[in-house]
Amino acid sequence: MKAMNIAILGCGTVGGGVAQIVLELQESLKERASTSICLKKIVELEPAKASERFSIPLSYFCGNGSNLTPAEANQHIDDIIASSEIDLVIETIGGKSDFVHDLCLRVINSGKHLVTANKALLAERGKDIFEAAEKMNVKIGFEAAVCGSIPIIKTIKESFTGDKVLSVSGIMNGTSNYILTQMQGEKLEFDQALKLAQQNGYAEADPSLDINGGDARHKLLLLIKLAFGIDVVKDELPVIGIENITKEDIDFADEIDARIKLICYAKKINGDIYATVRPMLVKNSNFLSEVSGATNAVRVNNKYSGVQILIGKGAGSTETAMSIVSDIVFIARYGDKIQNLPVKKEYNFADAREFVFPYLITFHTGNVPGTTGFIATAIGSQQINIETVSHNRHAGEKAMFSVATMPCTLRQIENAIEAIKKERPEMLMSEPKIMPILY
Amino acid sequence: MKAMNIAILGCGTVGGGVAQIVLELQESLKERASTSICLKKIVELEPAKASERFSIPLSYFCGNGSNLTPAEANQHIDDIIASSEIDLVIETIGGKSDFVHDLCLRVINSGKHLVTANKALLAERGKDIFEAAEKMNVKIGFEAAVCGSIPIIKTIKESFTGDKVLSVSGIMNGTSNYILTQMQGEKLEFDQALKLAQQNGYAEADPSLDINGGDARHKLLLLIKLAFGIDVVKDELPVIGIENITKEDIDFADEIDARIKLICYAKKINGDIYATVRPMLVKNSNFLSEVSGATNAVRVNNKYSGVQILIGKGAGSTETAMSIVSDIVFIARYGDKIQNLPVKKEYNFADAREFVFPYLITFHTGNVPGTTGFIATAIGSQQINIETVSHNRHAGEKAMFSVATMPCTLRQIENAIEAIKKERPEMLMSEPKIMPILY
Repeated sequence: MKAMNIAILGCGTVGGGVAQIVLELQESLKERASTSICLKKIVELEPAKASERFSIPLSYFCGNGSNLTPAEANQHIDDIIASSEIDLVIETIGGKSDFVHDLCLRVINSGKHLVTANKALLAERGKDIFEAAEKMNVKIGFEAAVCGSIPIIKTIKESFTGDKVLSVSGIMNGTSNYILTQMQGEKLEFDQALKLAQQNGYAEADPSLDINGGDARHKLLLLIKLAFGIDVVKDELPVIGIENITKEDIDFADEIDARIKLICYAKKINGDIYATVRPMLVKNSNFLSEVSGATNAVRVNNKYSGVQILIGKGAGSTETAMSIVSDIVFIARYGDKIQNLPVKKEYNFADAREFVFPYLITFHTGNVPGTTGFIATAIGSQQINIETVSHNRHAGEKAMFSVATMPCTLRQIENAIEAIKKERPEMLMSEPKIMPILY
Repeated sequence: MKAMNIAILGCGTVGGGVAQIVLELQESLKERASTSICLKKIVELEPAKASERFSIPLSYFCGNGSNLTPAEANQHIDDIIASSEIDLVIETIGGKSDFVHDLCLRVINSGKHLVTANKALLAERGKDIFEAAEKMNVKIGFEAAVCGSIPIIKTIKESFTGDKVLSVSGIMNGTSNYILTQMQGEKLEFDQALKLAQQNGYAEADPSLDINGGDARHKLLLLIKLAFGIDVVKDELPVIGIENITKEDIDFADEIDARIKLICYAKKINGDIYATVRPMLVKNSNFLSEVSGATNAVRVNNKYSGVQILIGKGAGSTETAMSIVSDIVFIARYGDKIQNLPVKKEYNFADAREFVFPYLITFHTGNVPGTTGFIATAIGSQQINIETVSHNRHAGEKAMFSVATMPCTLRQIENAIEAIKKERPEMLMSEPKIMPILY
């Protein structure tokens, strides 16, 4: 069989890992793919650094190892796209810029397969990329785009085909999970834990996308596409990040045998898809509560096979690269037969405020008799059944008020809070935090 | 594309689940396979029972729903094997009898694909079955044979192709894990927990294969074949079951923050494959300690992507059937391109007594001063470093002696025990239990 010739665009953390594995595993990849996987070209602005870090001979780099100007790099990319020798391109530049978006389209329109870890691009601007791939009958590998090393894409696409996904959820951002784990284990405030994450390489200098839930949202959008067959526009899926989680919240969770985790959750109920990304209180009886540090975990609840959980590293160089290399092997072996995406469905994407959970509502209030009765009544007026109310942790004039509800919608809770704000605004000494409870 | 016509042989718990899913998911399977999956025939001695349990119209059964004599069933099986209409046969009769073995060979030699959950057959008598499949270029789906619903076969075969498996381990027998969990949680002795498992449908009337480790060994043998590419003969992989685990052992594990689990473990070290199936002490810091009840978990340690864990239901009707249906879809979609088994390797299968772990050794001894020194010396004489020794839980004249070693081989430990038996046999008031410790 003809060899599969590949080119790597961008030789940073992930691209370099791909080159490393492809060069180290040549024999084994040939056995797995039943054809050789040949690395032909790497385009990288600073080859010397990448060459040293990943032990890649300089001869693999366009320009033979000398630094490239952006214009030179573009010329090499153009040559690769124009070359009939290259069968598959690995895009590991990253980001959702017009440049990368157009680059991916050009790769596809030149009849080459595309493998990428680029979740931002595929989640926000993937529609025309997947459409172009259909038209050109080329394959897109994106296992690495969701939870790094965890093979959740292929598992849903190839292993759960004899089932129906009812819900998919999990811890899909390692940085935020590392921060929350440090806050809990080391009793740190958010800022201290973030600094630690940056010092230890778990968070970038600009950690916004990790801590505001944006990165997790990209992953959930891709999983919704795969598991339920619908395209959801980014802004239709509102997210809450972990920036406002305090040590006090973590301590309180501890007291009720739970841990706070940034959870992605999507669920099908009667033809409607509900989804949310936000901090949740995961009870210690739930497996996800045990997933600590930078580890990721995806939980799929299937109609016929029940709950299945996959746990692994959500980021890292060879960890993410492994998923890319496995995609290359899969495309080399199965090529034409692969379906990039499942058949589209007509499910309605519901308003996240209608997502039913048991919720925990916490806020500060005064140390004033009558508070419990008033707030419990306001909540009950919205037809919400209350499981427990506590008005404790009194510190001088300030106390922590918490209500654990029976399953209800976020909208009901927001209405109740609205009513309290209107009638007795002084009772809310801090903006209420509303977290779903996962048992 | 031509439809994929299938026949089911044996419509019990698993075969019935397959029929149910194939009939309920017709549209979805067609989308996933890009061709129709058509159930043509079911051979079952007592169709009425299966029809009712799984809502399968009687018309699908050979003989139109009347009970079959074994001779009639055989005739129907012969017809299916001879029929050019059938593309794929699902063997859900079970067992490793000559009848089932020959049946599978005949299916393959007639040019039909085979999908089965039959771990005993494939692990003990699979060699000529896989060889025949190579010769006939037909595909064998056996995802359901290892840990029911957990897609570990496809994950190793299709998702970790860009990696190297260093070790594979896990909890692969739900019955024994249920029993151990009950012993621990409910403070039961083994016999009581076994009875409970039988009452609740987690253990069969004859639970031998589940509790003596035989079933777990079948699964590990198949995983060794897949992950490392070598065939191991059943008896080369010695097993220890859970029959001799006592409440006292469980309590002792609890005291050292561990749980006793029946663990399958295979590991590659310098071209040698080490493997064992036996009760191990899993420290609470290890994820596997949290896997309770009838749940299964497989842990793969990969060279490039590190530790990956898959958790799910290891048995059950639609749970196991789901894996079979997914295999049918995979064969329908990818057919010829599928590799049944990875390329064979020349690794040496090592003696399990050379498998290095930290071990815990426990036995009863007399309440006699000098014991600790003598035993610790005997162990040290075998070049084993000791981590902790305790000689406690004194009950009258009997005490529990335990030694936690640093990593060493089982052979070293057996030699030490041999020496103690020879010089001071009275010190061993019970046969020592030797359990690897998993951190």
